[in-house]
Amino acid sequence: MTQLSPSPAPLYLDCDTGVDDSLALAYLLASPEIDLVGVGSVSGNVGARQGAVNTLDLLALAGRGDVPVAVGAHDPLAGEYGGGVPHVHGANGVGDVVLPPSGRAPAEESAVELLLRLSHEHAGRLRVVAVGPLTNLALALRADPTLPERVRDLTVMGGAALHPGNVSPVAEANIACDPEAAAEVLAADWDVTLVPLDVTMADLLEETDRKALLEAGTALAPWLGDVLDLYFDFHVATFGRRCSALHDPLAAAIAVGGVRPTVAPRVPVVVDDTRGPGRGQTLCDLRGLYAGHPDVPGARTRVVLATGSPLAPHLLERLLRL
Amino acid sequence: MTQLSPSPAPLYLDCDTGVDDSLALAYLLASPEIDLVGVGSVSGNVGARQGAVNTLDLLALAGRGDVPVAVGAHDPLAGEYGGGVPHVHGANGVGDVVLPPSGRAPAEESAVELLLRLSHEHAGRLRVVAVGPLTNLALALRADPTLPERVRDLTVMGGAALHPGNVSPVAEANIACDPEAAAEVLAADWDVTLVPLDVTMADLLEETDRKALLEAGTALAPWLGDVLDLYFDFHVATFGRRCSALHDPLAAAIAVGGVRPTVAPRVPVVVDDTRGPGRGQTLCDLRGLYAGHPDVPGARTRVVLATGSPLAPHLLERLLRL
Repeated sequence: MTQLSPSPAPLYLDCDTGVDDSLALAYLLASPEIDLVGVGSVSGNVGARQGAVNTLDLLALAGRGDVPVAVGAHDPLAGEYGGGVPHVHGANGVGDVVLPPSGRAPAEESAVELLLRLSHEHAGRLRVVAVGPLTNLALALRADPTLPERVRDLTVMGGAALHPGNVSPVAEANIACDPEAAAEVLAADWDVTLVPLDVTMADLLEETDRKALLEAGTALAPWLGDVLDLYFDFHVATFGRRCSALHDPLAAAIAVGGVRPTVAPRVPVVVDDTRGPGRGQTLCDLRGLYAGHPDVPGARTRVVLATGSPLAPHLLERLLRL
Repeated sequence: MTQLSPSPAPLYLDCDTGVDDSLALAYLLASPEIDLVGVGSVSGNVGARQGAVNTLDLLALAGRGDVPVAVGAHDPLAGEYGGGVPHVHGANGVGDVVLPPSGRAPAEESAVELLLRLSHEHAGRLRVVAVGPLTNLALALRADPTLPERVRDLTVMGGAALHPGNVSPVAEANIACDPEAAAEVLAADWDVTLVPLDVTMADLLEETDRKALLEAGTALAPWLGDVLDLYFDFHVATFGRRCSALHDPLAAAIAVGGVRPTVAPRVPVVVDDTRGPGRGQTLCDLRGLYAGHPDVPGARTRVVLATGSPLAPHLLERLLRL
């Protein structure tokens, strides 16, 4: 008898590629547990169109020119796109490295159309990972409120629960870029795993890891090592040495099952969408932690506060395949 | 040669007595390092007038009918007093225990007048400890913006930095009762030590401690053990057993030096005074923690995140004197 391994789960990635988005994308491509069936871009680390171009270039380097890439929302639900963070991700989003152009154009459909189409093609099985601002997902929910019925689960990199924010004392960048969208997405009727700074700031890639990527001798990995260079510089001010947080790949690894949450209570999460000092904060009701029963009955969002194993070695092992 | 001990520092206590306020008051009375020169009451756990009556009764039991007690603000700066928390502190603020009446009336002056008068009498030396909503302090600052010049330091029990709140997912009761006042007090030009839930929820009084108070055979301590009974009941839902957080006495002990902060960065603290979901939160800019240099130059508020020793044995040792 042969043991059948389960067929890979179809997965849609929504991202603002982005240095750590690049790592998340590559990790998903190297993960046999899932089948990357589409990528939508959104403005965040870089504009939505540039994010799609970066995604296409990275996919081409990995020999995956088959994965559809659609351009998503340029502006957040309320307001205008702020222009990205060139000191963090480079002016082009990939650390100012000039990737070999894929020669491929983004899909004619929008990211919202792609997501909705995939949700029908893979109804009940589609997994969604969102590692940028949640604008596309909010627009998809507005366009079709039945979307959650066809999505197996949603994993979001974003927010800060009991840790400092990274764009304000309390707000994390993905949520802060579009709090109105995050509020709508977290209020919708689906199972969400929120991967906040509490865990993504605790799991770092070091210079030795980056060197291993640079020296991989494979098609994509050395480019990723190069793309990380500027990002490592940026993190000196945060961590006191060249290294990098692993925001987006940690969300991808938790979605795939490569890293398992050990503390991840299901609690109500409200997004501060006021214009006050807390704008963009994810207010997670963790008051039950004191008594050791943090789950709140009826809550659909699981907030990851601790994981069982470090991401870096696992991530590196997979990235070195590409 | 005799070694001269420093003369006790004059200290004004602002409180909403209150079960844990009672412990803080008693601790201060038992502390040779300070001289309690006045107490102002404010609405919070109980109405301002009832808080003053409770304070007078406790002072009488301790044989300290000499300490002036003034009634302070009934309503917060914006809005009306909400009526207290009878399920936590009892309808009368002291766990529904009927204390022997002091027979003494509150001072004719208001809490604001008392604080300002003491700040002149002890200019440059007066220490202030506030363990209730900050309404009186804000009104005193409005009445005389030079007050901070005459105050040596201010210690505030309030807020939550990297811990859940206790009246909302992010807000602590003292700050949430009057966010506008807290914002004004924390924006004023004085050295503030903020003692938030991060430390006050980690330092508990247990049933054995309460029994020791009940059996002390002294004038005040057995009453405190009795007053704690209802408060211990309330904490079962939070901690899973009868016990009590030590919010207010921890602030008092940190002010006096009986407990020393070990992690207490000086950082900007902003109070959310919007009407949004974060209302009443203390937003402490702790982003420097990641790099191990949490102090922010120019910041005047020290946020206590860890202490060097447990409060309970030290507190008990002092309370058993009374």
